[in-house]
Amino acid sequence: MRKLVLAALIAAAPAQAQDHTQKLSPDDVLMASPASDWQALDPSDTLVMTLPRGRVVIRLAPDFAPNSVANIKQLVQRGYFDKAAIVRSQDNFVVQWAQDPEPPDTKGWAEFERNRTNSFLPLKDRDTYAAEAGFDNGFAAASDGRREWLAHCYGVVGVGRDNAPDSGSGIELYAVTGQAPRALDRNMTVTGRVVKGMEFLSALPRGTGELGFYETASEKTPILTVKLAADLPPAERPKLEWLKTGSPSFAAYVEARRNRGGPFYVHPAGAVDICSITPPVRASGP
Amino acid sequence: MRKLVLAALIAAAPAQAQDHTQKLSPDDVLMASPASDWQALDPSDTLVMTLPRGRVVIRLAPDFAPNSVANIKQLVQRGYFDKAAIVRSQDNFVVQWAQDPEPPDTKGWAEFERNRTNSFLPLKDRDTYAAEAGFDNGFAAASDGRREWLAHCYGVVGVGRDNAPDSGSGIELYAVTGQAPRALDRNMTVTGRVVKGMEFLSALPRGTGELGFYETASEKTPILTVKLAADLPPAERPKLEWLKTGSPSFAAYVEARRNRGGPFYVHPAGAVDICSITPPVRASGP
Repeated sequence: MRKLVLAALIAAAPAQAQDHTQKLSPDDVLMASPASDWQALDPSDTLVMTLPRGRVVIRLAPDFAPNSVANIKQLVQRGYFDKAAIVRSQDNFVVQWAQDPEPPDTKGWAEFERNRTNSFLPLKDRDTYAAEAGFDNGFAAASDGRREWLAHCYGVVGVGRDNAPDSGSGIELYAVTGQAPRALDRNMTVTGRVVKGMEFLSALPRGTGELGFYETASEKTPILTVKLAADLPPAERPKLEWLKTGSPSFAAYVEARRNRGGPFYVHPAGAVDICSITPPVRASGP
Repeated sequence: MRKLVLAALIAAAPAQAQDHTQKLSPDDVLMASPASDWQALDPSDTLVMTLPRGRVVIRLAPDFAPNSVANIKQLVQRGYFDKAAIVRSQDNFVVQWAQDPEPPDTKGWAEFERNRTNSFLPLKDRDTYAAEAGFDNGFAAASDGRREWLAHCYGVVGVGRDNAPDSGSGIELYAVTGQAPRALDRNMTVTGRVVKGMEFLSALPRGTGELGFYETASEKTPILTVKLAADLPPAERPKLEWLKTGSPSFAAYVEARRNRGGPFYVHPAGAVDICSITPPVRASGP
């Protein structure tokens, strides 16, 4: 019953835009969303990184970085990351992982952007960094109208590189743990985002070396295993689904984040930054 | 010698805006800045919070929240926070501290904004949330042209409250540890920002209760003491200075953040978000 009422409220949401005390909360929107607005994670594009304190689940973005993602999957299947460690944690920036010591670089790919496609859905809100900013199939993205790229929001996973744009092959990966470093957009290959277990990366003690690298071996967090979800026994695969960012529920969710309802907010913001919206992911099935 | 060369480059910076490979890095700008562009922290508006792992230094903002800051200083001087603990750490949002259990709320102040003053210096960059965004005496701030408020960037310290806007008295404080929650702007009283030791708050394990509250006593981090720097023996006071945000060096620093130089960046961003610029603070004196 509550679900139906909420669904009716979602349908009516635009007409209520001025009455912020009556509006749905972001959580209300998710509760009211129909199952058809959600999509299961594809196990062949999902990584499970097991750390001593818990599992980190990464949704890969092969549509944006096909070569890099393919190579990362090969590295995973060869067991490269099973001998890796978190080697860096720089406050308000990134954690980074690789084998330690890192093998010599091999030439990689500069998959920083692609042509803008119809799956990119811009928000109406101003963005500091790009002409358009919005979402594309569950990822925050931005565009200049012609090209399109994934935005460096909290939880994004990218490929470390040297100065040469194509020097990142995936043997060194990072995840954003602080304020969105959007200056990295179009300068790094973004290969996915953490959809569960981010707290096992973000709460690691910060490294005291330059750029947040750990100075002693004991500070580094060993990675126990990284597996492609498809290679795990079905019972061990993460059972997660993501809210389709082209769905009516996602549009209502954005609006609920843009103008918070309820009695708390005196000045609803009336706007929202793409990196202040973490595309919703939830447990699927029983 | 290097310092003089860099100073000359700062003076020449605007003319070089197109040639990003030759430009100063943000660190270069700081190294070249004259001493007169820096100002020592005022010990009568600086808090030192000692946690088991290190000291957190908070610069208070009495010009924005005079009643709240005065009350927090009284609470500090009465020893209220010496029996407090970090009771909450919500990933990508805030840590929060108070006595535990928290004493009953007393009426406080809704010091969310003030009239815009000449000390507010807007950046030229678009901001998602406000007509103008920039800096005011070392704090990130925003304005609608008439009113002005401190922006919820990483490290900002504010007053927790209930639904009533004036229900926050300072007995419960929070610090932002994730993507800037700008929707809180004009909805919370911002009383300062962490200028050193942020990593002792941001890397705390996340609470597993609702909103990131810790569920057991052993998870909470005890606060050993909170002191006003002026009440500490001079040798124990933090020796820090902040870069005046109205200085030429700060303007050059913003420009260096806006368009990164050096061989790494393929696409300099050409823009910068106020919350991607942590106003510089450094050790002062020998």
